[in-house]
Amino acid sequence: MDKVVVGLLGFGNVGTGFAAILEENRVQIEDTLGCSISIKKILVREPGKYKDTMMPEELFTSNTNEILADPEIQIIIELIGGVQPAYDYITQALKHGKHVVTANKAVIALYGKELFALADQNGVSIRFEGSVGGGIPIIASLTKSLAANQIEEIVGIINGTTNYILTRMDETGMSFEDALQEAQAKGFAEADPSSDIEGEDAAFKLAILAHVAFGVHVSPKEIPCSGINQISEKEIDFAKQLGYKIKLLAAVRRNNGSLDIHVHPTLVPFEHPLAAVSNEFNALFINGNAVGQLMLYGKGAGALPTGSAVFGDVMEVVQIIRNPIRVENSFVNRHRFVPKIIGSGSSAYYIRLQVADRPGVLGKITTAFGRNGVSLESVVQRGRGGSSVPLIFVTHEAERDKLNAALNEIREMNTVEEVASILMVQRKS
Amino acid sequence: MDKVVVGLLGFGNVGTGFAAILEENRVQIEDTLGCSISIKKILVREPGKYKDTMMPEELFTSNTNEILADPEIQIIIELIGGVQPAYDYITQALKHGKHVVTANKAVIALYGKELFALADQNGVSIRFEGSVGGGIPIIASLTKSLAANQIEEIVGIINGTTNYILTRMDETGMSFEDALQEAQAKGFAEADPSSDIEGEDAAFKLAILAHVAFGVHVSPKEIPCSGINQISEKEIDFAKQLGYKIKLLAAVRRNNGSLDIHVHPTLVPFEHPLAAVSNEFNALFINGNAVGQLMLYGKGAGALPTGSAVFGDVMEVVQIIRNPIRVENSFVNRHRFVPKIIGSGSSAYYIRLQVADRPGVLGKITTAFGRNGVSLESVVQRGRGGSSVPLIFVTHEAERDKLNAALNEIREMNTVEEVASILMVQRKS
Repeated sequence: MDKVVVGLLGFGNVGTGFAAILEENRVQIEDTLGCSISIKKILVREPGKYKDTMMPEELFTSNTNEILADPEIQIIIELIGGVQPAYDYITQALKHGKHVVTANKAVIALYGKELFALADQNGVSIRFEGSVGGGIPIIASLTKSLAANQIEEIVGIINGTTNYILTRMDETGMSFEDALQEAQAKGFAEADPSSDIEGEDAAFKLAILAHVAFGVHVSPKEIPCSGINQISEKEIDFAKQLGYKIKLLAAVRRNNGSLDIHVHPTLVPFEHPLAAVSNEFNALFINGNAVGQLMLYGKGAGALPTGSAVFGDVMEVVQIIRNPIRVENSFVNRHRFVPKIIGSGSSAYYIRLQVADRPGVLGKITTAFGRNGVSLESVVQRGRGGSSVPLIFVTHEAERDKLNAALNEIREMNTVEEVASILMVQRKS
Repeated sequence: MDKVVVGLLGFGNVGTGFAAILEENRVQIEDTLGCSISIKKILVREPGKYKDTMMPEELFTSNTNEILADPEIQIIIELIGGVQPAYDYITQALKHGKHVVTANKAVIALYGKELFALADQNGVSIRFEGSVGGGIPIIASLTKSLAANQIEEIVGIINGTTNYILTRMDETGMSFEDALQEAQAKGFAEADPSSDIEGEDAAFKLAILAHVAFGVHVSPKEIPCSGINQISEKEIDFAKQLGYKIKLLAAVRRNNGSLDIHVHPTLVPFEHPLAAVSNEFNALFINGNAVGQLMLYGKGAGALPTGSAVFGDVMEVVQIIRNPIRVENSFVNRHRFVPKIIGSGSSAYYIRLQVADRPGVLGKITTAFGRNGVSLESVVQRGRGGSSVPLIFVTHEAERDKLNAALNEIREMNTVEEVASILMVQRKS
């Protein structure tokens, strides 16, 4: 039987998952490919630490040349994560004429454009299904099954840590801090959870989705982004009473020649399919001009789910190697779409005010909204009786600058104690 | 620019959708492929009827040879539906060395195995993404993105008509007959709805999924199957009170060397992602040994969603044509799995009895379950006070023959008026 030889960079969570899948499903994988897959070398910082893994000790090396310059190795599987040294290794591998499969969101979000071009120049392919949504086949679906569609929008829950925390707060009424601690204890959140909690992780993945779906390179740092650390259990409860769940949504949509893109905690109507995505699960909700609404749901992280995505890519590359086809990485060239503006677009909003419980307050506030062109879908006033009461508004679709103008007027009213929350509301599907 | 020439068989709903997508998204499609797609001929029974379509009149023909024997046509897109003459046309096209893309569930479910082999013999490919789940990329996901997984089970809502009817009954309390009429008025059900209502349509699609995921050819007629015509609004309400929705589920799972496969109305726990799939939407819930739980959700029918799937296949075939690669249709050969039994497996069950409201009845019934090895998860007794009351049991996982033995004993008790319902219950995800 023919053999394709691969080299692994990194042997952490996903690397172990990849090796475990090869071990467990080897017969089926080799029957599918008509050839075997052999892991020749594994690059790690300290080879001495890997004496008791499932892989033979002699495979581990700290010498990059033993992998990146070995002519027998045809595919480099990069599972180190982070920008450096992963970026350098990927670049070297492509220049050596090796195909690359990676699950590295940072490298693809920041340097995807140049790496795709470098791969094309060298007649090899670079695949990155595992970089967004773990085991969910989102990149393959966008580039292949949905290739005849113009994608209108993608709205996703693409950070499992924050979704787990929000789910636990919703289900139990626990505080953000307690839910975060629980997530850390269960391994769903890291010791330093800031990248997840603040939305940065989601922004990196969203930049990759924007690139694949719209052919537009957006720097993740430029994506308007807020996290979930300001979401209280009280807010979740208010939202629930109005028929919404609060989710951290990453959204990108085409809007009259501009590209709306942002990561924000957002109220999702109960009947929207994204509202049912709980715990550490991820989901991508896609709207294509032919397929209509589509949602892909699954585990967004973990050794085996991400290993599954990486392995799917590797198997595709093996078939490319065994069939001399012209490799095309430049799917991004198929979009003639150059957005005029990259912004965060208009939205419906949830606004919670804390106001003095006096006659006439509501009228003055609704007038201020109306004067600024913000129309209201619903108003809820809770807990009459105290001197200070919460007042909640859900607006129709409004532009953010009009909303801000209205809120500036409202803030100056002496009956308004606080604009306590401003959150986006997802359209009903 | 290069050109790939295709011929359409049929110009109904999906054919029109295909042509509309080409018209609307032509620039993006051609940029992706680096070549243009040209529809040369469209086979219809009465060409005279197609004077005012979006396609030039002279493309329509009733002469099969003008399409199937035209050496310029490289891809035949079969969108007639039904077994004959579609099966003959597909066979002829493959023998003429043409690639085939079809959305025909009947032909693939019944003759897939022989058509895949015929395509292999002729060095061409046959694709059928549109035959299951409309625009949902289920075939591509199973054969490519999830190729490294051993699939453990697939549970799907793959008939939009019945899902629409069940959703409306659940939301409004209307009867099956009224919901069916509404579905017909909205175009979600046909004038003769029996194939959908009785589960036959779902059984055909399930046979295709079993073939792709497990490499096992199952005749659709052999799949244990029941429809939704016996589901009353009362049953839906009882299920709801217990925390379940009733859905028509098509399920296939590996079970210790046997293959469990069936189509039945099933109670789905509210918290299961399939419970949130409403109206005419379809969803496939997959469990793979690497990826874990995955769900794909979207429109299971309609001109544009199914057209999107067909077009994705066509674009893939165009890339195969333009790159001289060895075509592999024989993905089914990768499975070394030969099921010992093809059956419907064990399940948890929902049993509704109508019993006399007398002391001791419940004890006798629960004893009968226990004696036959059927253990109970919950018991609900409603509406005490009348002479006859409903008594509802949800069992733990049980084999059907044990359940039948228990129910035979129970039926003979003179306090039991009727075993009114026996429905499967989906495991919690």
